[in-house]
Amino acid sequence: MNYSKERLLQFTKSVFLSCGMPEADANLAADVLLSADMRGIDSHGVARLSGYIRLQEAGRANMNAKHKVIHETPSTATVDADQGLGLVVAPKAMDIAIEKAKQVGTGWVAIQNSNHFGIAAYHAMKALPHDMIGISMTNASPLVAPTYSKERMLGTNPICMAFPSGSQQPFIVDMATSNAANGKLEIAQRKNKEIPLGWVQTKNGLDSVNANELKDGGSLLPLGGHKGYGLGAAVDILSAVLSGANYGPWVPPFVAFLNPLENLPGNGIGHFLGAMRIDAFRPAEDFKKHMDQWIIRFKQSQRVDENQEVLIPGEPEFRLQKERELEGIPLNPQVEKDLQELAQKFGLNL
Amino acid sequence: MNYSKERLLQFTKSVFLSCGMPEADANLAADVLLSADMRGIDSHGVARLSGYIRLQEAGRANMNAKHKVIHETPSTATVDADQGLGLVVAPKAMDIAIEKAKQVGTGWVAIQNSNHFGIAAYHAMKALPHDMIGISMTNASPLVAPTYSKERMLGTNPICMAFPSGSQQPFIVDMATSNAANGKLEIAQRKNKEIPLGWVQTKNGLDSVNANELKDGGSLLPLGGHKGYGLGAAVDILSAVLSGANYGPWVPPFVAFLNPLENLPGNGIGHFLGAMRIDAFRPAEDFKKHMDQWIIRFKQSQRVDENQEVLIPGEPEFRLQKERELEGIPLNPQVEKDLQELAQKFGLNL
Repeated sequence: MNYSKERLLQFTKSVFLSCGMPEADANLAADVLLSADMRGIDSHGVARLSGYIRLQEAGRANMNAKHKVIHETPSTATVDADQGLGLVVAPKAMDIAIEKAKQVGTGWVAIQNSNHFGIAAYHAMKALPHDMIGISMTNASPLVAPTYSKERMLGTNPICMAFPSGSQQPFIVDMATSNAANGKLEIAQRKNKEIPLGWVQTKNGLDSVNANELKDGGSLLPLGGHKGYGLGAAVDILSAVLSGANYGPWVPPFVAFLNPLENLPGNGIGHFLGAMRIDAFRPAEDFKKHMDQWIIRFKQSQRVDENQEVLIPGEPEFRLQKERELEGIPLNPQVEKDLQELAQKFGLNL
Repeated sequence: MNYSKERLLQFTKSVFLSCGMPEADANLAADVLLSADMRGIDSHGVARLSGYIRLQEAGRANMNAKHKVIHETPSTATVDADQGLGLVVAPKAMDIAIEKAKQVGTGWVAIQNSNHFGIAAYHAMKALPHDMIGISMTNASPLVAPTYSKERMLGTNPICMAFPSGSQQPFIVDMATSNAANGKLEIAQRKNKEIPLGWVQTKNGLDSVNANELKDGGSLLPLGGHKGYGLGAAVDILSAVLSGANYGPWVPPFVAFLNPLENLPGNGIGHFLGAMRIDAFRPAEDFKKHMDQWIIRFKQSQRVDENQEVLIPGEPEFRLQKERELEGIPLNPQVEKDLQELAQKFGLNL
C-alpha cells in the first residue's frame, strides 16, 4: 500500500513529538526522513524511525538536544550536537555553513557528538537555493574492511556534493564509499538472491556472493578497492578526527542492541558539511549556464545500448520524487509493521 | 640505470630554462615533476617532460606565464593561469589558499586557462607544514566513459587529500577517479599482458581485457561504476565549470599531436585547490594525536594474509621515496631516450 508524503510526515513528526522533541526539531527531523523516502532511498527514510527511538531508549540519543558552536573562525565552525539526532543538527549546521559562505565566500562545519544524519543529499541540497555548492559527509558504524584487512574498520561513509544548474535539474552525487550499501544487501536477503562479487567478503577475507555474509562476521568492501578505502577513510577523518567525534572501529553502532566500545576516543559520531558561494568564484549565472551545457552534453553522449539513456547523477532520484509526489510512497510490509508498532506504542494513528 | 634526484632535477630545470621559463618557475616545475618520480608515480614525472615541451611548440603552453587573480573573497580566489603549466601555477595558487586559510580558516582556489599540473599530491601536501589539510584536484583529457555511455567524456580526474599527523607519516590519499590510470595500461602494453576486467571497454562499450583498447577507440571505466562517474564528474565541475576552464569532452588533450576541439566553452584545463587550517576546527595538537591513533589502529587491523600488512594511504609512496633517496630513480629505457633527445635538442648533458 502507498502512503502520501503528507501522511507519513505528520506521523513521523508525531512520533518525534511523543519522544519529547521540540516542535521545530520534530518538523525538521521528519522532513529529512521523508526526503529519503521521496527520493527512493528507502533504507534511510521512515524505515529507520524506530531505530532512532530505540537509540533514545538506550540512553544514546537526546531528543531535546541543544547544539553548541564550540569553536569558530570566519569560514569554519565546530559544533557539539549534544547527543542529538544528526537529522536535526545537520540542517542547522548547514545553515551556519551557508551564513559563513555569505560572509566570506565559503563555510565549513565539523560536527561531533551526533547520531545518524539521514541522507547526505538533504543537507548538501540546502545550499542550492542560495546559489551555493553544498557538500555533506558523515562517518558511520564500522562495516567496511580496509584493503588487505578482514576487520570492519570504516562505515559506508557517504559523501554528497550538490551543484546548482540553470534550466536543468541540479547535479547531485550522493554515494557511499563502499561498493554496496547495507540496504542493497537487505534487498538481496529478502529476495534470497546472490549478490555480485566485490560487495562483501567472508570473516576470513575471502570473496563471497552470500547476501548474509555480514551477519556471519564478514565485511563490506570499499568502492573499487584501495581507492574507496582511501576515500572512506578521508570522510572518517574529516567527519570525526577533525570534529572530535569517534572514528574508525570506535564509531558507536546505529543499532541500539549493540553497545559502543569502551574508552572511546571522541564523542558520538561525526559529520562534515560545506557551502561554497558560486559567485565567490565566478558570476552564478555563468556557472549555471555552463552547468546546463555540461548536463545537456553528457545526456547526449553516445549510448552503449540505444534503449538505456545516460543518466546525470541525481536524475533517478528526481524522477522517483516526481513519481512519488503523484502516487505516494510504497512501504514494504516490514516497515509498515514497524510503523504500526510505533503508532500503538505512542497512541497515534498511522 | 638509476639517476639521482639532484641530477634529474638540474636537468629538468635546465630544459625549462632553455624554453624561456623564468628561473624561479623552472625550479618549481622541476621540483613538482621530480616529486612524482621520487614517490614512484613514474607516469607523472620526467616521463612527461617532453610532452610539456611539445605543448609549448604547438603554441598551447606559455612558459613565461604570469598568473592573475581574477576574482576573490576572503576565503576564495579564481586564478587565470595565462596558459602556463599547471606545474607552476598550482603550487602558487596553493600558496594563495594557504594564505587565505591563515586569515579566515580556509582557502579555496579555482584555476582556469592552465595545463597539466603533475601529481595532485604535491599541491595538497604543501598544506601539511602549516598544520593544514590540503586538497587538490584537476580535470584532464577525456578518456573515461560515463556509465551507460561508450564515449570518452571525462579525464581520469584525480583528487588528493592530505592530512597532517603527529609521530606518524601524514595520511595522503591521491587517486584517479577511474578504475585504472593510463599509466597502468602502458605498463601492461609494454609487458604484452592482459588487464583485469573493469579497467576498459571497447569502442562499442563491451568488456575487454585488452591493454591496447584505448588506442582502438575504447574508453576507461569509472571507479567502481556509476559512483566513480559521479565523483569524476564532480571533480570536472569544481575544476572547470567553477573556474571558467573547459570541461568534459572539451578538455584540451595533453598530447600535442591532437588538436583541441573548436568552439571551446572555457579556457585551458582547470584545477581546484583547498587548504583548511586544523585549528580553525580544534587544536592542531589534538588532531595530530588522534591522527596518530587512527593510523596505528588501522595498521593493527586484522590481516587477510599474515604476510600482507594493511597499508595507510600514502604509505607505499613514502617508502618508495626513502628507497629512491638512497638508490636513485630508475628510468625506463624509453624515458631515458626521451630525455637524451631533449638534452641533444637544447645542448644539455643528461
